[in-house]
Amino acid sequence: MTHSGRIQIATHGNTHVLDITSEVNRELADSGIREGLLVVFAVGSTAGITTTEAEPGLLTHDLKAFFERVAPQDQYYKHEETWHDDNGHAHVRASALGPSLTIPVVDGRLTLGTWQQIVLLDFDTRRRQRDLVVQIVGE
Amino acid sequence: MTHSGRIQIATHGNTHVLDITSEVNRELADSGIREGLLVVFAVGSTAGITTTEAEPGLLTHDLKAFFERVAPQDQYYKHEETWHDDNGHAHVRASALGPSLTIPVVDGRLTLGTWQQIVLLDFDTRRRQRDLVVQIVGE
Amino acid sequence: MTHSGRIQIATHGNTHVLDITSEVNRELADSGIREGLLVVFAVGSTAGITTTEAEPGLLTHDLKAFFERVAPQDQYYKHEETWHDDNGHAHVRASALGPSLTIPVVDGRLTLGTWQQIVLLDFDTRRRQRDLVVQIVGE
Repeated sequence: MTHSGRIQIATHGNTHVLDITSEVNRELADSGIREGLLVVFAVGSTAGITTTEAEPGLLTHDLKAFFERVAPQDQYYKHEETWHDDNGHAHVRASALGPSLTIPVVDGRLTLGTWQQIVLLDFDTRRRQRDLVVQIVGE
Repeated sequence: MTHSGRIQIATHGNTHVLDITSEVNRELADSGIREGLLVVFAVGSTAGITTTEAEPGLLTHDLKAFFERVAPQDQYYKHEETWHDDNGHAHVRASALGPSLTIPVVDGRLTLGTWQQIVLLDFDTRRRQRDLVVQIVGE
Repeated sequence: MTHSGRIQIATHGNTHVLDITSEVNRELADSGIREGLLVVFAVGSTAGITTTEAEPGLLTHDLKAFFERVAPQDQYYKHEETWHDDNGHAHVRASALGPSLTIPVVDGRLTLGTWQQIVLLDFDTRRRQRDLVVQIVGE
């Protein structure tokens, strides 16, 4: 059995980190699937998905500081010559993090830890309406 | 068909890298699944899963040195103000690496390379008993 | 239903980034699967898979510059003492990126964005023939 859902979510960009766990859990409940795999996939090449503890320090400061350290916004990016834009760092951060997260479904629930939430990171340099696919396979 | 297994594993923390390939292969053998997908998922927000060549240089030095370079332990992390603890770097490293790894199962075997093993990285600052979920879907 | 395909691809190494989207789409078409999950898995421990916008700036400069920043080639790697070789940075980069990418299949198509392509990154220090597994589960 396969269930496909879509989540639309408004972001501020600039490495905005958003807890999307409740939206993903709603898709799982809608699917009726009790055992299997759930995938959250970010459509587009300037966003990524991972897990973290959804507390303000990590969400508003620490993850953004990490990406600014490893792929600084004011660095030279050849991408920006191609399009004459300013989001080379956003592309590099998104490729490094990856657009996809797979989580087991056991007894109708995601096997996340108590302090482990699903987050979308939008690295682009402007506000966006993001499109996520939630795909669930199982029984 | 879906098989769910749990692996419990004692770690030293502090970016301890542990080869868990034989434990994962045991779950695959138990499942009887010959064709499909296997997911290893680290429960909690201070550990991650990837593959590497399981030789002492990478396991005991190089991967830890990489994470110390990109997310230094002695850096400021706002997370530590929230909980008055010391593991902000562990959270950031785990989010960057990701908690999940998906591997194809073909002819009853994982499609790993000869020098490619599955590893758990525990970034937390203390010894822990880690809980991993091994989820296998297929036939 | 499970479909297993193999892609063989010649690379230059040295963080060569190759757009493999059309090869992966060919496997999906061959499978006949309309709804499910597709996994691209890089066999070996010095390559990884992610998505990016396949334009020359990112493909030929920006992603390589990122990996050179976070895991420089001329850094000390203990791995190189084990084998007396020169690809410690390649192993570390591959482990950080991850060998696996999972994408939903909806209505017989991958849910990639318009400017989002699937790429193989070969970090090894020599030309190689790379072996990728494309595993598709669904109906």
